[in-house]
Amino acid sequence: MNTTELAVLLESVGVGDEMYRLICELYPLCRSITGNGVRETLCAVGRHVPLEIHEIPTGQQVLDWTIPKEWNVRDAYIKNSKGEKIVDFANSNLHVVSYSVPIEKRMPLEELKRHLHTLPEHPDWVPFRASYYKENWGFCLSHNQLMTLGNDAYEVCIDSSLKPGFLTYGEYLVPGERADEVLISCHTCHPSLANDNLSGIALTTILAKYLSQAKLRFSYRFLYIPSTIGSISWLSLNESQISNVEHGLVIACVGDSGKLTYKKSRRGDAEVDKAVLHALKHSGQEYEVMDFSPYGYDERQFCSPGFNLPVGCFMRTPYGRYPEYHTSADNLDFVRPLCLADSLLQCLSALSILENNETYVNQNPKGEPQLGKRGLYRGYPNGGSDDLALLWVLNLSDGNHTLLDIAERASIAFGVVKKAADALFACDLLRKIPNDRCDYTHPRA
Amino acid sequence: MNTTELAVLLESVGVGDEMYRLICELYPLCRSITGNGVRETLCAVGRHVPLEIHEIPTGQQVLDWTIPKEWNVRDAYIKNSKGEKIVDFANSNLHVVSYSVPIEKRMPLEELKRHLHTLPEHPDWVPFRASYYKENWGFCLSHNQLMTLGNDAYEVCIDSSLKPGFLTYGEYLVPGERADEVLISCHTCHPSLANDNLSGIALTTILAKYLSQAKLRFSYRFLYIPSTIGSISWLSLNESQISNVEHGLVIACVGDSGKLTYKKSRRGDAEVDKAVLHALKHSGQEYEVMDFSPYGYDERQFCSPGFNLPVGCFMRTPYGRYPEYHTSADNLDFVRPLCLADSLLQCLSALSILENNETYVNQNPKGEPQLGKRGLYRGYPNGGSDDLALLWVLNLSDGNHTLLDIAERASIAFGVVKKAADALFACDLLRKIPNDRCDYTHPRA
Amino acid sequence: MNTTELAVLLESVGVGDEMYRLICELYPLCRSITGNGVRETLCAVGRHVPLEIHEIPTGQQVLDWTIPKEWNVRDAYIKNSKGEKIVDFANSNLHVVSYSVPIEKRMPLEELKRHLHTLPEHPDWVPFRASYYKENWGFCLSHNQLMTLGNDAYEVCIDSSLKPGFLTYGEYLVPGERADEVLISCHTCHPSLANDNLSGIALTTILAKYLSQAKLRFSYRFLYIPSTIGSISWLSLNESQISNVEHGLVIACVGDSGKLTYKKSRRGDAEVDKAVLHALKHSGQEYEVMDFSPYGYDERQFCSPGFNLPVGCFMRTPYGRYPEYHTSADNLDFVRPLCLADSLLQCLSALSILENNETYVNQNPKGEPQLGKRGLYRGYPNGGSDDLALLWVLNLSDGNHTLLDIAERASIAFGVVKKAADALFACDLLRKIPNDRCDYTHPRA
Repeated sequence: MNTTELAVLLESVGVGDEMYRLICELYPLCRSITGNGVRETLCAVGRHVPLEIHEIPTGQQVLDWTIPKEWNVRDAYIKNSKGEKIVDFANSNLHVVSYSVPIEKRMPLEELKRHLHTLPEHPDWVPFRASYYKENWGFCLSHNQLMTLGNDAYEVCIDSSLKPGFLTYGEYLVPGERADEVLISCHTCHPSLANDNLSGIALTTILAKYLSQAKLRFSYRFLYIPSTIGSISWLSLNESQISNVEHGLVIACVGDSGKLTYKKSRRGDAEVDKAVLHALKHSGQEYEVMDFSPYGYDERQFCSPGFNLPVGCFMRTPYGRYPEYHTSADNLDFVRPLCLADSLLQCLSALSILENNETYVNQNPKGEPQLGKRGLYRGYPNGGSDDLALLWVLNLSDGNHTLLDIAERASIAFGVVKKAADALFACDLLRKIPNDRCDYTHPRA
Repeated sequence: MNTTELAVLLESVGVGDEMYRLICELYPLCRSITGNGVRETLCAVGRHVPLEIHEIPTGQQVLDWTIPKEWNVRDAYIKNSKGEKIVDFANSNLHVVSYSVPIEKRMPLEELKRHLHTLPEHPDWVPFRASYYKENWGFCLSHNQLMTLGNDAYEVCIDSSLKPGFLTYGEYLVPGERADEVLISCHTCHPSLANDNLSGIALTTILAKYLSQAKLRFSYRFLYIPSTIGSISWLSLNESQISNVEHGLVIACVGDSGKLTYKKSRRGDAEVDKAVLHALKHSGQEYEVMDFSPYGYDERQFCSPGFNLPVGCFMRTPYGRYPEYHTSADNLDFVRPLCLADSLLQCLSALSILENNETYVNQNPKGEPQLGKRGLYRGYPNGGSDDLALLWVLNLSDGNHTLLDIAERASIAFGVVKKAADALFACDLLRKIPNDRCDYTHPRA
Repeated sequence: MNTTELAVLLESVGVGDEMYRLICELYPLCRSITGNGVRETLCAVGRHVPLEIHEIPTGQQVLDWTIPKEWNVRDAYIKNSKGEKIVDFANSNLHVVSYSVPIEKRMPLEELKRHLHTLPEHPDWVPFRASYYKENWGFCLSHNQLMTLGNDAYEVCIDSSLKPGFLTYGEYLVPGERADEVLISCHTCHPSLANDNLSGIALTTILAKYLSQAKLRFSYRFLYIPSTIGSISWLSLNESQISNVEHGLVIACVGDSGKLTYKKSRRGDAEVDKAVLHALKHSGQEYEVMDFSPYGYDERQFCSPGFNLPVGCFMRTPYGRYPEYHTSADNLDFVRPLCLADSLLQCLSALSILENNETYVNQNPKGEPQLGKRGLYRGYPNGGSDDLALLWVLNLSDGNHTLLDIAERASIAFGVVKKAADALFACDLLRKIPNDRCDYTHPRA
């Protein structure tokens, strides 16, 4: 796998369009942290990759949490006294506050208003709201519409169910040469929001599909889980195997046209952090780096101090930093095939570094070996950065530097350094350090 | 103790005025490194806090030094041939060079001039000069006055005594829960200089008075000592107990209207350094930080390599950086009640951090605990920095981070982090690490 | 040795002119990596310092390399069909590609052109080219001249020999108090190029001459070697004694009028790195610092991972960064006596730091000693940086800081700190740590 080959590959197969089509297919489904919308979503993903579906029963203890009741909604509306549906779940599943308990009641505007949510600062948009852990009900609508509502007796109906059932999540393992895993996680709990979270689902799915066809050093585990309770559940059920996680990324908000943003793992200097930052630095694009903070997506759970996994978060514009976040404006117009494809490409570029990052030892460490007699050195001015990469790999391959460390130190793209190392290895000028020593940057507890 | 409560408290009791009144009371006294001016100063302070007075006899060896003779001065003047007192100690005790030996002699201007000190660059001001360790005599006057002196036979009189006596200093210990001490030191050797050193004496005294009424974790030791020889003496006499000093501050120049300045301890990263810098960073004011240097006040001695105590220096404008320094312009107009009160407030704010800085261990380190069910989490958008503080404390309470470390990492004020920790501790989500492990940042030799 | 004394000394003896004259003397010689030009060069240097000449036979294995055949050239030219010499080695030895095999042949322009080298971007200059490790022949000429060549039958003659012989290098050891060595290396393989490499030869020679007359702590080993194969050879032949190298500098390009540039050793924080940077920082001039990279001069070999010697590279404008580099424009006009003298001075300034850098322990570490009674302290305002240096040396002489560390921490020139340490040592206030403990910054493997 190499970045340039991939870019060509991705363009030729229209992978941006493929991700966008999946987003369009999933957009109308009413997802929440449980329920049939999640099942339908995973079913659609399952047509691309063979997902294993897990169902955890309501009431099961997962770490400090308890699996909540399952929520489903069939219909919901507000009618005025003329019997006109003025707010209708059939038009947008954002209209119902997620996890609303069933209700059927006539009430004056004053009482109704306490259950209505709007965005005064964006009067045309409908907000997304949920009340997972506190029983309540409510509707979301545009502020402009709220302003038109007069005194009337409104008929409110939410035909939902909140009762014992299951929390549903999907998992897919692509085995590699090693049992050590790269964890790729996306969240599946938001309804019709295109960037947060459908873009993450789409990228994860197409990434999984491509990697399943590649020869891989690491095994890759893909998780499709509801935020927080989903990662808590997975961590709880898989606690004994968590030490297999060698690297990890949470994927979210990867379809908007903002610049790429990487939020580092709690460790801050994990190999995945270095690999993503190297890939972004050599992407030719602007990008942003955020230090870890315990607020955001499921990296919060993966990076809790008892696990402290090397998991970062890969995004374009981060949560809460774009006005469309958690509103009806995060719609199908807000994400773009080209941006999705670019996100996938840079993600693959970083994973490619992890796949190829080895530690070598120079077998001729005293003085430079004579590269010319081995046909490796083209010399001034033809050799350029290829020659330099050969010299850097030889100089720093003392057992204490990975190829990524060398690429960073030399300010040369990883791919060029890797090519140099391959050439030197082929001449027996390098010896590879076995993997168990190579893992020194993140020792297992 | 919390910063906001203190600010209100301080304003309501007029503590700035209280410090200013003490400065006014002490201003006329003729202090030096020994003598009755020091005794009268400590006596005045003793009306606020119960000082223990120490007298060390002339000739006693203290570390590499010897207690000098005691100096007192009753009168001093220069008369012209008409018998007019043209320079008179009765007008300002700055007129006599401190530690001047007695003299009574008539002399021409030429001879007299060798004993006169002025400030040509500030022709209206009278400098402060001393000659503690080399017997000499002299007068200080304004340069403008010097310019008016003609050829004449001048009668010079210094009615002083320099003979075996004592070095006098004051000490006050406010006991806390722990034997470990916070050392607060000010110097008492300068005559009528308001900022350097009366402001330090006043702040130390009012601080001592307030802390004596508070419930304290640490014990607080307040020192009123002459510069250099005083700290040398105290260190010499208390060498066996010096390992009790856990944190320390030298207080000087805290009444002028310049911005606050903190000079770090020799260690540079002592807990007191971090606490003061955190307090200043969150004070909403501009401030300055100086690295340690072996020039300045008694931190020179406390931070000598054989002691290397974690003692910084808390100032507004530092020694030598304001033109009024060591001149008659460092007078009662140069210091302000409001600035004194602000200095005290920020000092208390830093001490409050030291008092409350604990290390906790998250008792539910795997995944986040469900804060909602414990009523701790208010959620978006109500929770704000309180919610964030809860998450940061949980995430970093792995036994390797104090609350101050967490506050710094999270860029949240210590008080908010402390409040979060208290709430989590009340829910048994945190365990406190016993103090002896918490002291890891400055191990005892 | 102290910087100011040296500057005066250097000016008074016209040392810049002395170096420049040596450059002029060596300029016409046709050097390469082997051959009589090298021997004549070393012979000329030998008139200044007693060089030991080494000859290593062709075919001898040195590390991964093999000593090549010896190359010599007597004559070379291109004649047009009228018999006119249009390119003539007698005019400039740059006209012949170094290591050209013998040839005597008539050929059309088309064939000849494949062996001609020019610089289209500098049409008046003649490039320098070599083909040491691949048998070939060629001529270098100005691009303007190439443009004038018409179709003709050209007679090409290179009267050279490439056959078994020797690689020649020079070495000179100036013994000091200690067996530990400072390695000073310059390259001798370039023909008529004044800055690269004659300035390096000249500075090294005059430096050696001066140091041979000085009382030295370290021994100094001066190497005059061809690039790459020369350092490879020396390292190969001296492998068992290489651990004696305590510090080292490669000297090159020190005669141009650009600012001084220091390229750090691979270690990056070796004592020689700190010493040169301190000297440059206090030189009052602009200068540049480069991190180590495995491209450049013989520091590539000295800093290969199997040796990892603390050897940096001391230059003015670095290799490849001036357009005249490796062209006929790097001639006698390009280097200046004044720049050579300044390079020597700054180099001596750095070596003087290494010579005088000791670690002391304060014998009175508790509190400051009373400097006044020892006549060391002049006090405010007379003492200035001398007083400060005394206090810094006392404060940081805890066995963990060399004088250079102290000078850096205090931002005071090394010479002032050294003077303070000497004064304190004379009063028994300091104890010197024996050399074997002082060497902690670069432990021997």
